[in-house]
Amino acid sequence: MSNKPRSPGRHFLQIPGPTPIPDPVLRAIDQPVIDHRGPAFQKLSKRVLEKVKAPFKTKNPVIIFPSSGTGGWEAALVNTLSPGDKVLMFETGQFASLWNTMAKSLGLKPEFIESDWRIGADPAQIKERLKADKNHEIKAVCVVHNETASGTTSPLQEIRQVLDELKHPALYFVDAVSSLASIDLRHDEWGIDVTIAGSQKGLMLPAGLGFNAISQKALEASKKSGFAKSYWSWADMLANNANGFFPYTPATNLLYGLDVALDLLEQEGYDRVFARHRRHGEATRRAVVAWGLEVLCKDPKYYSPVVTSVLLPPGHDADAFRAIALENFDISLGTGLGRVAGKVFRIGHLADTNDLTILGALSGVEMSLELAGIPHKKGGVQAAINYLAEQAKNPSHKLAAAE
Amino acid sequence: MSNKPRSPGRHFLQIPGPTPIPDPVLRAIDQPVIDHRGPAFQKLSKRVLEKVKAPFKTKNPVIIFPSSGTGGWEAALVNTLSPGDKVLMFETGQFASLWNTMAKSLGLKPEFIESDWRIGADPAQIKERLKADKNHEIKAVCVVHNETASGTTSPLQEIRQVLDELKHPALYFVDAVSSLASIDLRHDEWGIDVTIAGSQKGLMLPAGLGFNAISQKALEASKKSGFAKSYWSWADMLANNANGFFPYTPATNLLYGLDVALDLLEQEGYDRVFARHRRHGEATRRAVVAWGLEVLCKDPKYYSPVVTSVLLPPGHDADAFRAIALENFDISLGTGLGRVAGKVFRIGHLADTNDLTILGALSGVEMSLELAGIPHKKGGVQAAINYLAEQAKNPSHKLAAAE
Amino acid sequence: MSNKPRSPGRHFLQIPGPTPIPDPVLRAIDQPVIDHRGPAFQKLSKRVLEKVKAPFKTKNPVIIFPSSGTGGWEAALVNTLSPGDKVLMFETGQFASLWNTMAKSLGLKPEFIESDWRIGADPAQIKERLKADKNHEIKAVCVVHNETASGTTSPLQEIRQVLDELKHPALYFVDAVSSLASIDLRHDEWGIDVTIAGSQKGLMLPAGLGFNAISQKALEASKKSGFAKSYWSWADMLANNANGFFPYTPATNLLYGLDVALDLLEQEGYDRVFARHRRHGEATRRAVVAWGLEVLCKDPKYYSPVVTSVLLPPGHDADAFRAIALENFDISLGTGLGRVAGKVFRIGHLADTNDLTILGALSGVEMSLELAGIPHKKGGVQAAINYLAEQAKNPSHKLAAAE
Amino acid sequence: MSNKPRSPGRHFLQIPGPTPIPDPVLRAIDQPVIDHRGPAFQKLSKRVLEKVKAPFKTKNPVIIFPSSGTGGWEAALVNTLSPGDKVLMFETGQFASLWNTMAKSLGLKPEFIESDWRIGADPAQIKERLKADKNHEIKAVCVVHNETASGTTSPLQEIRQVLDELKHPALYFVDAVSSLASIDLRHDEWGIDVTIAGSQKGLMLPAGLGFNAISQKALEASKKSGFAKSYWSWADMLANNANGFFPYTPATNLLYGLDVALDLLEQEGYDRVFARHRRHGEATRRAVVAWGLEVLCKDPKYYSPVVTSVLLPPGHDADAFRAIALENFDISLGTGLGRVAGKVFRIGHLADTNDLTILGALSGVEMSLELAGIPHKKGGVQAAINYLAEQAKNPSHKLAAAE
Repeated sequence: MSNKPRSPGRHFLQIPGPTPIPDPVLRAIDQPVIDHRGPAFQKLSKRVLEKVKAPFKTKNPVIIFPSSGTGGWEAALVNTLSPGDKVLMFETGQFASLWNTMAKSLGLKPEFIESDWRIGADPAQIKERLKADKNHEIKAVCVVHNETASGTTSPLQEIRQVLDELKHPALYFVDAVSSLASIDLRHDEWGIDVTIAGSQKGLMLPAGLGFNAISQKALEASKKSGFAKSYWSWADMLANNANGFFPYTPATNLLYGLDVALDLLEQEGYDRVFARHRRHGEATRRAVVAWGLEVLCKDPKYYSPVVTSVLLPPGHDADAFRAIALENFDISLGTGLGRVAGKVFRIGHLADTNDLTILGALSGVEMSLELAGIPHKKGGVQAAINYLAEQAKNPSHKLAAAE
Repeated sequence: MSNKPRSPGRHFLQIPGPTPIPDPVLRAIDQPVIDHRGPAFQKLSKRVLEKVKAPFKTKNPVIIFPSSGTGGWEAALVNTLSPGDKVLMFETGQFASLWNTMAKSLGLKPEFIESDWRIGADPAQIKERLKADKNHEIKAVCVVHNETASGTTSPLQEIRQVLDELKHPALYFVDAVSSLASIDLRHDEWGIDVTIAGSQKGLMLPAGLGFNAISQKALEASKKSGFAKSYWSWADMLANNANGFFPYTPATNLLYGLDVALDLLEQEGYDRVFARHRRHGEATRRAVVAWGLEVLCKDPKYYSPVVTSVLLPPGHDADAFRAIALENFDISLGTGLGRVAGKVFRIGHLADTNDLTILGALSGVEMSLELAGIPHKKGGVQAAINYLAEQAKNPSHKLAAAE
Repeated sequence: MSNKPRSPGRHFLQIPGPTPIPDPVLRAIDQPVIDHRGPAFQKLSKRVLEKVKAPFKTKNPVIIFPSSGTGGWEAALVNTLSPGDKVLMFETGQFASLWNTMAKSLGLKPEFIESDWRIGADPAQIKERLKADKNHEIKAVCVVHNETASGTTSPLQEIRQVLDELKHPALYFVDAVSSLASIDLRHDEWGIDVTIAGSQKGLMLPAGLGFNAISQKALEASKKSGFAKSYWSWADMLANNANGFFPYTPATNLLYGLDVALDLLEQEGYDRVFARHRRHGEATRRAVVAWGLEVLCKDPKYYSPVVTSVLLPPGHDADAFRAIALENFDISLGTGLGRVAGKVFRIGHLADTNDLTILGALSGVEMSLELAGIPHKKGGVQAAINYLAEQAKNPSHKLAAAE
Repeated sequence: MSNKPRSPGRHFLQIPGPTPIPDPVLRAIDQPVIDHRGPAFQKLSKRVLEKVKAPFKTKNPVIIFPSSGTGGWEAALVNTLSPGDKVLMFETGQFASLWNTMAKSLGLKPEFIESDWRIGADPAQIKERLKADKNHEIKAVCVVHNETASGTTSPLQEIRQVLDELKHPALYFVDAVSSLASIDLRHDEWGIDVTIAGSQKGLMLPAGLGFNAISQKALEASKKSGFAKSYWSWADMLANNANGFFPYTPATNLLYGLDVALDLLEQEGYDRVFARHRRHGEATRRAVVAWGLEVLCKDPKYYSPVVTSVLLPPGHDADAFRAIALENFDISLGTGLGRVAGKVFRIGHLADTNDLTILGALSGVEMSLELAGIPHKKGGVQAAINYLAEQAKNPSHKLAAAE
C-alpha cells in the first residue's frame, strides 16, 4: 500500500459494497488473536451468535461461515436440495444470473425467469410459474432481495404471499447480501427458509463472513438433502455452535468486528438505519433526474435504497466516466456489470454513511459529468440538498447521537 | 467513547484544527513504544529531525517539544529575549491576542497594534511603528501567519522587507501553527528567526508537538537571553538532538506519526498541497458569497487558504447555528472566538481533505442555514461545484495518486 | 471484548495456531476497504498473488480462497478428483482424521493408514500400500505435513521418492496448514500437486484465507474432475486472477495483511525462519525431558518444529492443567484433540515468536505443573535457557534486525 | 519504521519506562480527532479529569499538561514558589539530580542532600536539615518517590511525618513519574502538595502528558508565586477545566488513551496492581542474587517494585552487555545514567506486564550474561520461577480476569 502517492483526504467509496468500515469496527478487528477453543472466545462467539439474529429478525440459528457471501449461496443450496432438483430464480440482474450459474454448476435445474434488469423480482411472474408447477417439482424459489447490479429491490413479502396463496411447498431462499441491515427483512415473519448474507455491506465489515439464517423447514430439508458436502455442512456448524465453538477455525478477528458492528447498528436503531437508506436513495434519484439522466430501475416499486444504477446517454462509456471520477475526485463508483457493462455506473449509498458524505459523492458525480463531457443539466446536488434539508426538519430523522 | 449512540458515517471535522488525521498516520501512532535511548529510536529521531526541515523550508535545526503549539510561543520568547524587552505584535485576531497576553505574563512589554480582526498583519502599520523605534527598543516583531480565529493570512515576506528596508535589528517571530504545510512559508529565504508550529494542523497529527525553527541570529540571541528556563531551553535540546536523543522523554508515538505525515506531504508535493488549500479557500468563499453572507476577512489580500470566518446576519447566534449543524449533520464548525464570539462561525478547509469533503461540508452549512432559519440564498454549494469543476480541468491539479 | 477485567500484560498464545499476529500485519488489516474492482486493488492483488508463491517455493499459481484452511482441503479434492475415487491417507493425528472424514463426506473412498498419532506419515507404510495398488486405483496420496494435533512432521520428500520409485501416477496432496512458512516445503521441487494452507499459522495472519498451490498435473486433472463445484472452482479463480481480480468478493483486508506478512517473512529470511522454529522445537523438548514428562511424538525423525504435544502422567487431566495455566499465568496452551483428549497438552512454538517468549511460555508451563500438583522435576526452563544461550553463540542465528 | 528487517515476535521493553502500551490503549489513541471545543470532547474531558484522581488518591483537581513529566516538575515549581526560594532535595539518583539542576536553572536555591544513589530519600537526613532551618527558609521539600535511575523507592509517608513533627510549613512535592499507578501513593492522606506524574509509566500511555495533583495549600501558594509563567499556569487550567475545556489545544488522542488506561487499572484493581509490582520486584531481585550479582539499592527498605538496577562486576561494561541483549534477544534493558553509567543496567518490571513476560525478560538477562562472558551463576530464572510459583498459590494474586 505504501510508496505510492496518496490522494489527500478520505476516499469516497461509493460502490454498493464492500462499504466503508466504521473506525470502531476496524479497531476491533485490529486486536490480537485469541485461542478459538478457549473460554474467552467461547463467550464472544455465544454472544455474537445470539446478537447476529437481530438484523435477520429471526429467533432461529444463524450460521456464520468463513467465506464470502457467495459461499452463503452455495451453503443454502447444498444443505437443503439434491442434485437434479428444480429451483425457480428471477433475473433481477448480474447477481441473480451468477446464482443461477452456480445452481447449474452444482447440478441443480434452475428455471430462470428472464427479465431486463430494470425491475425487481415480479411476484406476478413468479406466481404464474409456480401455478404451472402442479407437481411441485420446484423445490425452492430463489430471490435476490436487493440486486446490487441493477439497483432494484424485490418485494419479499409479496412473494411469500404468492407461495402461501398457492400453498406451494417450495423452500424460499433470499439473497440478502446487499440488503441486510440496510433494508428491512424479516426472516421469521416473512417465512424465509434461508436468508443468505455477507459481512461486507450493511453489516459494515470487511468481506470474509458468509451467513445463512435458516428456518425450521430448511433444517428439516437439510436432513434429506442429497448433496455431498463438508465445509458447508450446517449439521457440523450447529452442533459446534451450540457450545460456542466452530467445526473448523473461524475468522476470529471478523467476529470481533461483527460484535462491535452489531452494537453500532443497535445504537443507531434498525428503523432509523432503514429510513436513512431510503432517504439517501431518494436524494440520489432526485439528483439523477435533475441531471437529466435515467435511473436504470424503471418502476418506483422496485427502487433500491442501497444503490442507484444510472444510465449514461448512448455513446458515452460509463467506465471511462468512472475513471475520470476516480482520478480527479478520488471517488469509486460502481461499474456496470454483465449486460449493462459500459452503459451504467452505480452509486452506492449504503451502510456507514451520512447526508454530507452522500452530497459530497453526488458533487463528485456532477463535476465528473462535466469533466467527461457528458450532456447533463446542473443542479443535481442542489436537488438532493433541497430534499435532505427538508427531511432533516422531520424530528424522527435526528441522529441517534444527538438525542 | 463507548456506550453512546454514534452518528453513522464519517464525522465532518471542519474546524480550523485539530484536523482529520490520515489513517496511515493514526496507524503509525498506534505502534508499540520503543526505548527512547536505544538505537532504533535514535535512527528514527535523526531521520525525523532532518525531514521536518522541509515544511519550514529551512536548513537550520528545528526543535520539537512535547507540548502544544502554545508551548512553541513560550519557547520562542524565553529563549531569545529578556524580561522587560519590548516586542511588537499585530492584532490579527484571538491568537495574536493570546500571544500578546502570554508576552505580558512572562514579563515582556508587548506593543500591540490593534486592529478589527478583518485583515492580516498590515506591513504599512508595522513599518510605521518600527520606523518610530529609533533606539531599536523593539527586540522582536511577532506575526501570526494565519490567524485561525479570523481567517486572515499575513504577508510574511512583505514584513521581512519592511525590517530589511529599515535595517531594524529586531528578531522576526512567526506563528505558523495553522499555516505550516498548508500555506507556503520559507523560514530561511524570508529571514524568519523563529517559526513556531504545532502538530495538529497542516502536519496532520494529533496535538502534542510544538516546533521552533530557528535562525542563526535567534541562536545567537539565545546565548544572551535573560529568562530563566529549563523545559523550553533550546541549548539542552540542540545538544541532545545532535545525537538523535532528547533531554527528557519525547512523545515517541507522535514522532512515529510525524515520520509518516512528512512522507505523505512529500508524496503529494508541497506546491500541490498549497494550491489545494488556495482552491478550497476560494471555493468556500464563493459559496459564502452565493449564500449572501459576509466573509469576515474584508481584504482579498489577506484571504486565508486554511479557514474562512463567516459573519451571520445580526440577530442570529452563530453558536446556535453550529449546534444545529452538529446535531443534524454531524459536522463540527469552528466557533467564533473572543470579540466575534456568537457572530461568526468558521469553516476549516485545511490539512488532509479534498474537493468532495469540502463540498459535503459546504452542503452541511447550506442545509443548516435553512434549518436554522438564517436568511440566505441557495446555490452556495453549486457555486463551489462550478468553481472546483473548472479548476479540475487544469492538469496541474491532478491528484498525485493519479499520475 | 470490553467490560471484562483484563489480565495485565501480553497474553501468551501458545496454541499451535492461530498464532500471534505481528503489529504491522494487524495495522495493515486495520485499513479502510477499497474497491475490489478498482485499479488500486488490482495492483495489490497482482503483487500479492505473485509474492505468495515464495513460501510455497513454487512458480505455479497459488489460489487464495476467502475460507479457512479446511476450505483448502475441500478445494483440493473437488477440483481434481471424482466421486468414488480412492485416495490414500495416513493417520498422523486429528487433522488427518478430519480430512479423511471430509473425503468420505464428499463421496471419495479414502484408504486410511491407521497409526497411533506418535509418528508422522511413514514412507514405508505408504510404499507398501501403493505397491499393492497395481491398478492405480489410488488417485491421490494425502499427507499432513505437520500434524498440529500430535506434534509430528512428515517427510514429504521421502514420500515423493516413494511415488517416483513406484512410478505411481497418484496426485500428491499436502496439508501444509501448520507448516507453511515455518518448516521448509518445496512445492515444485518435491513434486507436490496441491499444497493446502491457511492464513492463521506461519503466515501470521488471522484465519480467513485458504490456499491451494497447484501443479501443472493438478491443473490437468482438474479438467477431468467429476465433482460439481462452484465456490471452490479453480477455473474461475485462475481466469479472474490473471487480471488481478476474483470471481467473488475477496477478503480485501486480509490481503492487505498478507502483503505485509510476506514482506516480514522475506525480511527475516525463510532459512532463518525455519532455523528459528527448529531451535524452539528443540528447546521445548529439552524442557519437557528435564521435567521428566514425555513428548507424544516418539520418533525424533518426526519431531515437529512447530508444536510439541506433551503427555501428562496417567491420572492427570491435561485440560484441568491447561485451565490452571490460563487462569494463573494468562497462557493458552493447546488442548488434546480426539483420541488424546485430556491426556496431552500442546505447546505451540511457531510463527511470530522469539526466544524470550518461548522461555516465558515454558516458565508458565513449569509453574503450572507445580500449581496443578503434577509430578515433575524442576529445571525445564533452565535446560531450554542453556540450549538457547548456546545456540545464540552461532552467528547465523543473529536476528536479521541486528545485522 | 519500515524497510528494516524486524526481529520476530514481541520486543521485550524492559526499561523502567516508557512502558509497553496495552493494545486497547493504543487502539483508543488510534481514533479520529474530535473538536476540542465541542460537546463530545467536553464530556470526555470531564470524565477523564474526574477519573484521573483515582491513581493519585486525591479529591483535589489534577492538572494535565500536554508535556512530558519534566514539564510537571517545572509546573510544580513555577506555580508555587518565587525566584530565590530555597528548596530541599535529596539525591536519590539521576532524576533527583536533574530536578535539582532545573530548580537552579529557574532561579531557585536548592539545597541538595547528597547521597550515593544506593538508598531512597532518607527521612532522618531530611529531618536533620529541616530542623536546622529555624527560619523556615526552605519553602518546599522535593522527593522523588521512585528513582528510576537507581531503583530506589522513598518512604513518602515517613517524610510527611517528619514535616508534621517539626511543624515545618514547607510545601511537599513528590515526583511520582515512575511510581504512580505502580506503587501506592496517597496524595491527600499523606499531605502531598504537588504530586508530579507523566503518562508513560504506570499509566501505560505513550509519553506526552504531564500531571500535577495539587493540594489546597499548593493552590494558596500559587496565588503568591513570584514566577512569571504562562504555559504552566495552573490558574488558566483550572478555570478552563471546570468546564471540561483547556486554555490551549490539549493532546486529545492521549486523553482518549488515558480514559481507557484508567479503566484497565480500575478493572485490575489498584491493590492488585501494587501487589503485582512488589512480586515482580522481589522475583527480579531473587534472580539477581542467584546470579551472584549485586542490586544497586543496598537497603531493602528502599527496594523498588518498579525497576531493579544491577551492578556488573568491575571491568564489565554494562552498555556493551545491554547491546548484546538487544541484538541477540530483542530485549531493551535500561542504561546506567549519570554517575553509574556503564556500571549498572536496569530491569524495568512495571506497568502492563505479567509473570511470564518478567520470566522471559530474566531469561534474556541470564542468556546475555553468558554471551557477554560476565561471571555469574546459573539459576536466576529458576529462583524467580520458584518464587512466583509459590506466590501464585496465594488466591489473592489471582488474575482479575480469571475471577
